[in-house]
Amino acid sequence: MGFTHFDEHGNAVMVDVSGKLVTSRTAEARGRIHVSREILEAVLNRNIKKGDVLTVAQVAGIMGAKKTSELIPMCHLLTLNSVKAYFEIDEERSDIIAHCTVSVDGKTGVEMEALTGVSTALLTVYDMCKAIDKKMVIGDIHLVSKSGGKSGEFYYESQ
Amino acid sequence: MGFTHFDEHGNAVMVDVSGKLVTSRTAEARGRIHVSREILEAVLNRNIKKGDVLTVAQVAGIMGAKKTSELIPMCHLLTLNSVKAYFEIDEERSDIIAHCTVSVDGKTGVEMEALTGVSTALLTVYDMCKAIDKKMVIGDIHLVSKSGGKSGEFYYESQ
Amino acid sequence: MGFTHFDEHGNAVMVDVSGKLVTSRTAEARGRIHVSREILEAVLNRNIKKGDVLTVAQVAGIMGAKKTSELIPMCHLLTLNSVKAYFEIDEERSDIIAHCTVSVDGKTGVEMEALTGVSTALLTVYDMCKAIDKKMVIGDIHLVSKSGGKSGEFYYESQ
Amino acid sequence: MGFTHFDEHGNAVMVDVSGKLVTSRTAEARGRIHVSREILEAVLNRNIKKGDVLTVAQVAGIMGAKKTSELIPMCHLLTLNSVKAYFEIDEERSDIIAHCTVSVDGKTGVEMEALTGVSTALLTVYDMCKAIDKKMVIGDIHLVSKSGGKSGEFYYESQ
Amino acid sequence: MGFTHFDEHGNAVMVDVSGKLVTSRTAEARGRIHVSREILEAVLNRNIKKGDVLTVAQVAGIMGAKKTSELIPMCHLLTLNSVKAYFEIDEERSDIIAHCTVSVDGKTGVEMEALTGVSTALLTVYDMCKAIDKKMVIGDIHLVSKSGGKSGEFYYESQ
Amino acid sequence: MGFTHFDEHGNAVMVDVSGKLVTSRTAEARGRIHVSREILEAVLNRNIKKGDVLTVAQVAGIMGAKKTSELIPMCHLLTLNSVKAYFEIDEERSDIIAHCTVSVDGKTGVEMEALTGVSTALLTVYDMCKAIDKKMVIGDIHLVSKSGGKSGEFYYESQ
Repeated sequence: MGFTHFDEHGNAVMVDVSGKLVTSRTAEARGRIHVSREILEAVLNRNIKKGDVLTVAQVAGIMGAKKTSELIPMCHLLTLNSVKAYFEIDEERSDIIAHCTVSVDGKTGVEMEALTGVSTALLTVYDMCKAIDKKMVIGDIHLVSKSGGKSGEFYYESQ
Repeated sequence: MGFTHFDEHGNAVMVDVSGKLVTSRTAEARGRIHVSREILEAVLNRNIKKGDVLTVAQVAGIMGAKKTSELIPMCHLLTLNSVKAYFEIDEERSDIIAHCTVSVDGKTGVEMEALTGVSTALLTVYDMCKAIDKKMVIGDIHLVSKSGGKSGEFYYESQ
Repeated sequence: MGFTHFDEHGNAVMVDVSGKLVTSRTAEARGRIHVSREILEAVLNRNIKKGDVLTVAQVAGIMGAKKTSELIPMCHLLTLNSVKAYFEIDEERSDIIAHCTVSVDGKTGVEMEALTGVSTALLTVYDMCKAIDKKMVIGDIHLVSKSGGKSGEFYYESQ
Repeated sequence: MGFTHFDEHGNAVMVDVSGKLVTSRTAEARGRIHVSREILEAVLNRNIKKGDVLTVAQVAGIMGAKKTSELIPMCHLLTLNSVKAYFEIDEERSDIIAHCTVSVDGKTGVEMEALTGVSTALLTVYDMCKAIDKKMVIGDIHLVSKSGGKSGEFYYESQ
Repeated sequence: MGFTHFDEHGNAVMVDVSGKLVTSRTAEARGRIHVSREILEAVLNRNIKKGDVLTVAQVAGIMGAKKTSELIPMCHLLTLNSVKAYFEIDEERSDIIAHCTVSVDGKTGVEMEALTGVSTALLTVYDMCKAIDKKMVIGDIHLVSKSGGKSGEFYYESQ
Repeated sequence: MGFTHFDEHGNAVMVDVSGKLVTSRTAEARGRIHVSREILEAVLNRNIKKGDVLTVAQVAGIMGAKKTSELIPMCHLLTLNSVKAYFEIDEERSDIIAHCTVSVDGKTGVEMEALTGVSTALLTVYDMCKAIDKKMVIGDIHLVSKSGGKSGEFYYESQ
């Protein structure tokens, strides 16, 4: 038609998954928030003014995973079958560890849902505790495992 | 009225900021994503199939900061004055560093907006690059500084 | 790994529906808002300043049903096939009755979508009429019937 | 310009609050969900499979109040100062009572935010308990009190 | 710190409005959808199967204006004072004209809110009528006028 | 039950697609924004202060398509397989042309997703450039083609 094409260098693309099979796919992600001993104790004793930190963070993590396609531009909307979020305490390092596992029957994996669930849960812990001390650090957010789909199994331990 | 109160142990509370002054408040947060050399090079050369990674991540970071009160249960909705997101490259450690600075005239600080902006930007980098390698790690997400409000100035360098 | 598990007492869980069959599922919910005679007359005569109450409430009810997984923490996102909302007038009791029927082909039922549709419709009636009189009462919101899925048929008349 | 105007009968209108003063405004709403004795006991003993019902419902109620302007078509977006949600148990009637109180400095009241908070909390209780018994009924949702603004004080006890 | 800066060429920026005065700002936008005579007649006679087209489109337009900061990446979230949407019919050209007027007390204008309101209303008209004929064309979406702020008054008639 | 039915004239209806087959469906839409020569040049030279206009608009267009069921009242939520957005420049007319193509495996078409993607992209171009000149006009938004479903193939060139 005689029009000039916009330079396609760097076009953002939402991967076309039309040709892929609908299969069962899962992903698990994990991350940590490093807190002061004072905060860790208050969290475990349910002594934080703003509420029951890990229960609120758990709800936020599950709801965050559901919001992934709204937050991450090139992510597909998926009808997830399950979202689990739970926590562990690393007393030695004074860290709270967040886990999120997601599953779906779909054409694309759920790694971003699991990672977003972990991130939202940890951000919520920060929010609930920041009145005590703002020097918390969120880190080690990574994909632990995934299964299903063409690239099959994946397992990664970051340390 | 003779009703039994639900055990208020652990009530989730959205802090009442009615009594606080409207002042100018800012916050800056930072975080990193560790990537393989292959990914770092592809990102810098704008050679990632899924698009111009850092521009997409920048847009996602700014939009993510705006979504903070939807994601973080006890966060207040704020009419932000500005949201800035930008990146630096740590070639030595093969990390991409995301910065997010937020400002508002309001009754409460914007630490969560800045942290959520950083997290969303880094999650987007992960999403854009994961087809190459899923072993990326997001970390060192922390509040760098904040000003304004009763608790005044804060400055924190995590390392 | 030697970490302490967070006390799982009260863990919030999004039910894992992976193993369930995709079947046709429907649900119908109903509820009422009790209004003054003055309001009821104004609604029926389309004489409310804020607009055509029942048409606006109908749109809000349908859109509210679609938002269910955003509002209800442990609800699954579903690709609904249909959402119907309509009203009846109980002149004797001076009530407006809202109905919402939802259907899907999925692994889980749509009771929450139907109930959320009814609730949003009734809240919208309240909002449209509150300038006249704030003493309206929303009630009798219940599931009327559901079909499909393992628990099969359900029918309930609340009075 | 010679165009035909669309029949303005029933135009939906978002009230223009430009001329109003910014003042402190609060509202409190309340509602109930009638449940079986089996459910009431399981809720109080934190014995519901889907989680800690009243904590999850509380988070949902607070987050629902924040979403009001998205759900109710003619509602204004507000930067709320506070949202409180809590529960009482009416053992005699086997009801769970939800309260929601909201405050803002703004040009318009927060009655809809309080009512939406109550509704979302009660819908969440229903969702968390429906696996046991679907015959729960949500009702008596009403505005208890409001203050601030031109219409001043309001107090209403529905029974 | 010895890091390489990401090439700031093309950084997306949300304009910093911190230094601006809070003033009263309004904007009006307009647009058209060209439809077949068959559709125009059905709309005016309220004979479209999918519902009362212009009332649904009006609600959608008002709700769309409220969603502007979610849709337009660099837009600020604002607490709008008013949103009005209404329609005119250009029988000669077989067009439906949508108008949207928005006002706020804020640090930035509401041109995008008015334009988004018009766009959402016209897209909704398309959706409601597309079963009859998909050859409708949305056009002439432009800012008619704005007032307030440093750039003051603006008035534009596109034809 | 002896209740009066609300006059169903103009009921808003979300089409019931339960009985339809799941098939592969695509749609392409297109639209234009007419800009001044000054703006066109600045966009092509990436010289707009607010950022890399067409990349930001592309991201916004893709994210806007994903939000369609939130914006358009009677639209169904769909799990899209792909969303593509790209631009062309009509130097002669000083227009920027936006294209959006969407595909899904579903029971209903994706015309609204494609049109919403185009509209959001063009609104974003307006937002990014409006500091230079507010007299831009968005137009010629139309469905170019669709395939799949009972109504089969459709192709439309608006001029």
